[in-house]
Amino acid sequence: MKRIVLAGIATGVLADAIACMASAYGHADSKASPIYGVKIPPGYRDWQLISVNHLAGNKLKQVRAQLGNEIAVKAFREGKLPFPDGAIIAALHWNETSSDENNEVLATGFPGAGFQSFVAGPAENIQFMVKDSGKYAATGGWGFADFKDGKPASEAVHKTCFSCHEPAKDRDFVFTHYAR
Amino acid sequence: MKRIVLAGIATGVLADAIACMASAYGHADSKASPIYGVKIPPGYRDWQLISVNHLAGNKLKQVRAQLGNEIAVKAFREGKLPFPDGAIIAALHWNETSSDENNEVLATGFPGAGFQSFVAGPAENIQFMVKDSGKYAATGGWGFADFKDGKPASEAVHKTCFSCHEPAKDRDFVFTHYAR
Repeated sequence: MKRIVLAGIATGVLADAIACMASAYGHADSKASPIYGVKIPPGYRDWQLISVNHLAGNKLKQVRAQLGNEIAVKAFREGKLPFPDGAIIAALHWNETSSDENNEVLATGFPGAGFQSFVAGPAENIQFMVKDSGKYAATGGWGFADFKDGKPASEAVHKTCFSCHEPAKDRDFVFTHYAR
Repeated sequence: MKRIVLAGIATGVLADAIACMASAYGHADSKASPIYGVKIPPGYRDWQLISVNHLAGNKLKQVRAQLGNEIAVKAFREGKLPFPDGAIIAALHWNETSSDENNEVLATGFPGAGFQSFVAGPAENIQFMVKDSGKYAATGGWGFADFKDGKPASEAVHKTCFSCHEPAKDRDFVFTHYAR
C-alpha cells in the first residue's frame, strides 16, 4: 500500500520505490505504462536539466534530477503555462550514497566543519509526464509513467499519479520549478 | 581563509561560497577567471547531465548538478581517461531550500513518515573545468574557474583549485562519476 501511494507522488519531486533507467544512455524500452501507455522516450538521458533536488526521511534518501525535452524546457524557461502538447518531463531518482572520497577531501579542507557529500548511487526509478491535452484530458492533459529497470510499475501504482499531482493544478500539475 | 579553501574544492563535488550563473540561459560573461583565463562557456546550461549530489554541513546546504559539453559527456559515458582536450565540466551549485509545497503532499501521502523535500533555491556559484593538456600542463591539464553572478572569484581562490583536485589524480582529477 505504501509502495502504491509513493509511486503516485510523481515527477521530479516526490518518491516511490519503483522503476528506472533502461541503460546508461536511456534507450527506449518496448513496454508502456499501464493506463497511460507511455513508453520510455528514446534519448531522454540527453535532455536538458530542469532542476535537482533531494528527498530524505524514513529509509528513503535520494538525489534527483528532472530533465525536459526541448518543448518542456522552453516552456519552463519562458514560464509558459499550461505546458504545450509534446512536452515531456523526466524525473531521474537515484538512491544517494555518502561519498567517502569527497568527505575525506572536505575534512582536509575544512577540519571540524562536518561537511558531508552525498552522491548518486544506484538508480531507483525514472518517471515521465507526457503532455497530450487530448489524449490525457481526464488527467490534466498529462500521461504518467513510472519505470524501474526498464519495466513499468503496476496499474495500481499508476492510478495514484494524477491525484498526487492535483495540488499543483495552478502550475499545470507540475511540481518542479526551473533552477536558474 | 575559509572561503578560499572552500573554493578550491572544485567541480561538481565539493563546495565554496562563491561565483554563479550569468543568466537563466548561461550566456557568457566577458570576464575570465584569474590564473586560468577561463570564461563562462556560452550555452553551458543546455549541456547534458553528468550527475547530481548534495552537500550538507555547517551552514552550507546545497543541491548540485554537474553538466558536461559533448566531449566531456562522451568521455564519461565511455569511461575514457584522461579526458580529451576540449572537455568542459560545469558544476552548478544552488543553495537548497525546503519545499513546503512538496512536504505537504508527502505528509498527505505518507503520514508520519517524515519525508522532507529539498529543492534548488538561489544559485550560489558555478565552476568549470576546461581540459587543455598543453595550456594547463602544470595543473593536470585542467583550467579552473569559479563564478558568482557572472563574476570570477579572486586569484587567491583560484590558487586552491588544483590542489583540492589532486586526490582524484587517478580519475584525471575529476571527482564526479557519471550517474547511470
